[in-house]
Amino acid sequence: MTTKSENRARKLSQDIITAGKWISERHWVPATGGNFSARLNTAECLVTASGKHKGHLEEKDLLTIKWSGNELDCKGKPSAETRLHTQIYDLDSTAQAVFHTHSIHTTVFSRLIDAPVYRFNGYEMQKSIKGNTTHESDLLLPIINNSQDMQALAAVVQQRWEASPMPFAFLVKGHGMYAWGNTIDEAKRHLEGWEFLIECELKRIQLRPLLPDNIKQGNLR
Amino acid sequence: MTTKSENRARKLSQDIITAGKWISERHWVPATGGNFSARLNTAECLVTASGKHKGHLEEKDLLTIKWSGNELDCKGKPSAETRLHTQIYDLDSTAQAVFHTHSIHTTVFSRLIDAPVYRFNGYEMQKSIKGNTTHESDLLLPIINNSQDMQALAAVVQQRWEASPMPFAFLVKGHGMYAWGNTIDEAKRHLEGWEFLIECELKRIQLRPLLPDNIKQGNLR
Amino acid sequence: MTTKSENRARKLSQDIITAGKWISERHWVPATGGNFSARLNTAECLVTASGKHKGHLEEKDLLTIKWSGNELDCKGKPSAETRLHTQIYDLDSTAQAVFHTHSIHTTVFSRLIDAPVYRFNGYEMQKSIKGNTTHESDLLLPIINNSQDMQALAAVVQQRWEASPMPFAFLVKGHGMYAWGNTIDEAKRHLEGWEFLIECELKRIQLRPLLPDNIKQGNLR
Amino acid sequence: MTTKSENRARKLSQDIITAGKWISERHWVPATGGNFSARLNTAECLVTASGKHKGHLEEKDLLTIKWSGNELDCKGKPSAETRLHTQIYDLDSTAQAVFHTHSIHTTVFSRLIDAPVYRFNGYEMQKSIKGNTTHESDLLLPIINNSQDMQALAAVVQQRWEASPMPFAFLVKGHGMYAWGNTIDEAKRHLEGWEFLIECELKRIQLRPLLPDNIKQGNLR
Repeated sequence: MTTKSENRARKLSQDIITAGKWISERHWVPATGGNFSARLNTAECLVTASGKHKGHLEEKDLLTIKWSGNELDCKGKPSAETRLHTQIYDLDSTAQAVFHTHSIHTTVFSRLIDAPVYRFNGYEMQKSIKGNTTHESDLLLPIINNSQDMQALAAVVQQRWEASPMPFAFLVKGHGMYAWGNTIDEAKRHLEGWEFLIECELKRIQLRPLLPDNIKQGNLR
Repeated sequence: MTTKSENRARKLSQDIITAGKWISERHWVPATGGNFSARLNTAECLVTASGKHKGHLEEKDLLTIKWSGNELDCKGKPSAETRLHTQIYDLDSTAQAVFHTHSIHTTVFSRLIDAPVYRFNGYEMQKSIKGNTTHESDLLLPIINNSQDMQALAAVVQQRWEASPMPFAFLVKGHGMYAWGNTIDEAKRHLEGWEFLIECELKRIQLRPLLPDNIKQGNLR
Repeated sequence: MTTKSENRARKLSQDIITAGKWISERHWVPATGGNFSARLNTAECLVTASGKHKGHLEEKDLLTIKWSGNELDCKGKPSAETRLHTQIYDLDSTAQAVFHTHSIHTTVFSRLIDAPVYRFNGYEMQKSIKGNTTHESDLLLPIINNSQDMQALAAVVQQRWEASPMPFAFLVKGHGMYAWGNTIDEAKRHLEGWEFLIECELKRIQLRPLLPDNIKQGNLR
Repeated sequence: MTTKSENRARKLSQDIITAGKWISERHWVPATGGNFSARLNTAECLVTASGKHKGHLEEKDLLTIKWSGNELDCKGKPSAETRLHTQIYDLDSTAQAVFHTHSIHTTVFSRLIDAPVYRFNGYEMQKSIKGNTTHESDLLLPIINNSQDMQALAAVVQQRWEASPMPFAFLVKGHGMYAWGNTIDEAKRHLEGWEFLIECELKRIQLRPLLPDNIKQGNLR
């Protein structure tokens, strides 16, 4: 690497370390789960090393990986799920950072829904996802079956991507979320926006059938 | 501005920055959502710049805005929802600070209730809202339909205000809360008091229908 | 006061300030709610001033109050609920510190239960309440109707106390909890233990009717 | 002890103190509940003293205990539940650290399930438990009835262990969890992984019966 690209890699590493502390404080990467990456160029990215706690990352835990399709080249042991990160970079040329997290809410929500996609509508927070300007539009979040075969998962992500654009995130059933953006800050905003929308929708699912009509009507005498 | 009013603006900016940290720690302004303001005089206020994370504000993110009805004059790009802040200052001459927040609970609650107003009764915490001295009175929280047209929303707020006094807060459906007070501290107290009341009421709605009679009766043998 | 008792008062003030930070971080004293006290002797105690945020107390916010029955003598404006603190000191000679808190869980729980007392049984955590050595005994938590008349409330507390011993805590309906102990640490332990028991019981009430038999049986195939 | 083993004991004490702060911040050891240990050799371990708050441990609160079956030898007063820690060390020769915690979720979950074991399946997070490589396998968590007789409880743990291997954790009904590992870090990972799985399963139990078919199907029009 040139000095310039080394400096850029070092800056990205620091930003990922800082993001990891915030994500860990939200309890979205428990038990050494989750993995993060940032793109260096069209065929290289930084990715977190396997088995590290994502709230206590150090610069040495960010590994440089070179990829081409399913082939990954890396000194050290990168996250087992690196292939999904590189798939996102291949499919979305604007993607510069990817966060894969394991929250309680995404894990449970993804298991409850037996459909390939879930429709969000009526939330102002939909505007936190790039390209959305109103609560009145539909936002369709893909849900993909879990697999321990990363190449198979990557192929499904590609099929789903080609069938329909993804809202900078998808869920893996019983597993967690992938969220990305064209900067680390945008990836964080997409992550936090989607976590908010999913937690709201879980609460709405829970409360709606328990709501008697008089309460729906404002409990007015 | 005179030096005196500059000092006042600087002090207000610092207080908003501090309040923003606290509000962000409560997770009430996720994903760069929400916006805050403080009144400078009858036609000027400080308001947070668009797109900034409200937990990491800096003094430069507090913009001075001059308004007259729907006309807003500002160097820089203020929050898109500034018009609702100035509407509150126009309607309530005692209002000195306004917090607009996006919590999970206000978002879900405002979508569950199909009524223009929700009645709170029986909570000691009602006394945290200025002018309330007993849990036995009714406290009526307005709920307004969401819109991306700020002038239309401002007009609805005015109609609702003229029809009935507002308890220093209202909800926008699927969107969040506006809360205000005659100091920044009072606005914070109203915000926290209303969040408490709404979270309690959501739990009560959820639990009441699941409660068998023997448990209502104290589970005594 | 003698120097010795001044030093003791100063130490107690510091301990209350520290406890207040911890209680506020748990969100049990929102919106300037709640009040705390520590006994100085049989007829004097320190009590928090009215309207202060309990997470940011200073030494000057701890007022010395002298009492005799319903008569309270104090320089400054103590909490409106001081009379309940002194009532606890009068009734329980071992009480040295009292915390009155407003948590979501105690507020909701106290409104759901239509009985003067609620029975807890089967929790190891019952042992955190002094005098309890097994999960197999019954622990009866009193619930008292709310009132804005402190002398009336104090009289009800006395009647309930004389009818049956209290487990170092009682609830006021829609309002919150009073918890005490013979040291500040013991009062904190009783507060935390009761909050735990009440939150567990709310979850159990919520989940039991939703539990199909196959899940109760461990979801074994 | 030799200097080398003294250094090791000191290092382990520090690691337990640090772990205790993290566990306490998660609210898994409220009201002075819970107890922790680390193995020194086949017949000695460090264990937390009785009645201490586990978020504020000091080196002197870690007591050295020597054991042989039900006989425990210790200067000072170790946790009343020390016998269960030593039982785990006797049964699992790889165990080097044990955390016993009292979370809301383990307490409630263990009371809801009327079965000796609960089956977890379909969670990626199962891989946080050593030896598990896929979400498709079954992970069986033992649940044991609570008792104040530690020797009786230890005997039940032995019977259950001999009947079936334990996934580095078990629950005691209405009481909490024991989790262990072959390092302090692994014990923390098992603790956090199991807390995650139990909280997910409680949410799934709660939400599944409230889920109408159209929502299960992704709420697509």
